Amino acid sequence: MSIGRTHWAIPEGFIPGESLAGAERPLISHEAACILNAGAAVAHVAITLYFVHRDPVGPYRLKVPAERTLHLRFNELADPEPVPRDTDYASLIVSDVPIVVQHSRLDSRSAQFALVSTMAFGA
Amino acid sequence: MSIGRTHWAIPEGFIPGESLAGAERPLISHEAACILNAGAAVAHVAITLYFVHRDPVGPYRLKVPAERTLHLRFNELADPEPVPRDTDYASLIVSDVPIVVQHSRLDSRSAQFALVSTMAFGA
Amino acid sequence: MSIGRTHWAIPEGFIPGESLAGAERPLISHEAACILNAGAAVAHVAITLYFVHRDPVGPYRLKVPAERTLHLRFNELADPEPVPRDTDYASLIVSDVPIVVQHSRLDSRSAQFALVSTMAFGA
Amino acid sequence: MSIGRTHWAIPEGFIPGESLAGAERPLISHEAACILNAGAAVAHVAITLYFVHRDPVGPYRLKVPAERTLHLRFNELADPEPVPRDTDYASLIVSDVPIVVQHSRLDSRSAQFALVSTMAFGA
Repeated sequence: MSIGRTHWAIPEGFIPGESLAGAERPLISHEAACILNAGAAVAHVAITLYFVHRDPVGPYRLKVPAERTLHLRFNELADPEPVPRDTDYASLIVSDVPIVVQHSRLDSRSAQFALVSTMAFGA
Repeated sequence: MSIGRTHWAIPEGFIPGESLAGAERPLISHEAACILNAGAAVAHVAITLYFVHRDPVGPYRLKVPAERTLHLRFNELADPEPVPRDTDYASLIVSDVPIVVQHSRLDSRSAQFALVSTMAFGA
Repeated sequence: MSIGRTHWAIPEGFIPGESLAGAERPLISHEAACILNAGAAVAHVAITLYFVHRDPVGPYRLKVPAERTLHLRFNELADPEPVPRDTDYASLIVSDVPIVVQHSRLDSRSAQFALVSTMAFGA
Repeated sequence: MSIGRTHWAIPEGFIPGESLAGAERPLISHEAACILNAGAAVAHVAITLYFVHRDPVGPYRLKVPAERTLHLRFNELADPEPVPRDTDYASLIVSDVPIVVQHSRLDSRSAQFALVSTMAFGA
């Protein structure tokens, strides 16, 4: 069943450069775009990153198979370049078929981690 | 009074496998879909879960009576199968009458728990 | 300038019965509906609460003056009756002029408090 | 690529007056409006603040260049006047071109900070 939008924006991007000492993957500070493709066709997704003082970077390209979810960590984007830490950015996510995008962050700079989550803006 | 949509998506699903030692029900790590049926007819709801590497699971079926709320814990879904812990998933919630769905999680892996809450995507 | 909707829903209502020992008002566990009336006319607002196992309660009536905000704490609603603690509920907020409603909770059951905030569902 | 709305509301404004002793800028309690201007033209933005017991204050004026993001801290607004601490307020953000606005707060009154983030209401 197809649900969603083809354009999604996340204005508040920020990956903390620090994490709890010794944290394993689930508790390392990270930022994610959780994507649901509930439709019958693969989604071809292009992500562009926007910054305060320099030109946009991208597109980062990825696929989400039909009837699958992908919890993409911005920390792990590498091509065309990694996402800088401790830096304000924003992202625009464009798909060729409808998807739904939710933004989340786990911040473990503190000894106790903090979480945020919100639906991205879809258009 | 009827308010809402019939299709709701929550891309970011994740139930932490751990909780505070000795936590009682209110503070066990959990994920919830809080449903409001403000209308005059019972809502028949079907939930489908989407994963990263395997086919969708569902439907999970439940009813929300007229003029009632249900704060459904994904942890407690059992039929057709329990929701795996420490696993990325997403959910699609379909109702035969308009409802409103809000997503929340309490994560008590840390000695101090963390909370998130956001409106689901309605269509 | 008028902005918003006249009907807003918050499915996830829950006021923790406990707070930090000795907490003063800002850090007592509470749940709020933050209302913005940016228009030129007073907003007459009616709130109805929905529960899991009993009939709705309300309306709770209040006014938000023109060009003012009100950060309403559900903890402080009294007429027709107080909101029960440690109990799942939901709310429907109806206004005669457009308003914007944001939902937030401060949970200080833990020695370190947790916060959530999300825009309500507007229709 | 142009995406967004020209009017955005954030009903829940509150800047905690306290922070962790010795906190540096990233961990000082603050509230932000994260703005994405993904379009080809500069955005001229006007912010008005609404209060509980007094008239609105503003406009605060700023620009977001084409294809840039700005993570505006309300703490740092100064003209026509600073934003009062420990005071309920709301904000209305108007742009001459489409933008996307996300609201976030870092609250470090506690020894462990708390985070919230939600998309603003766009119209």
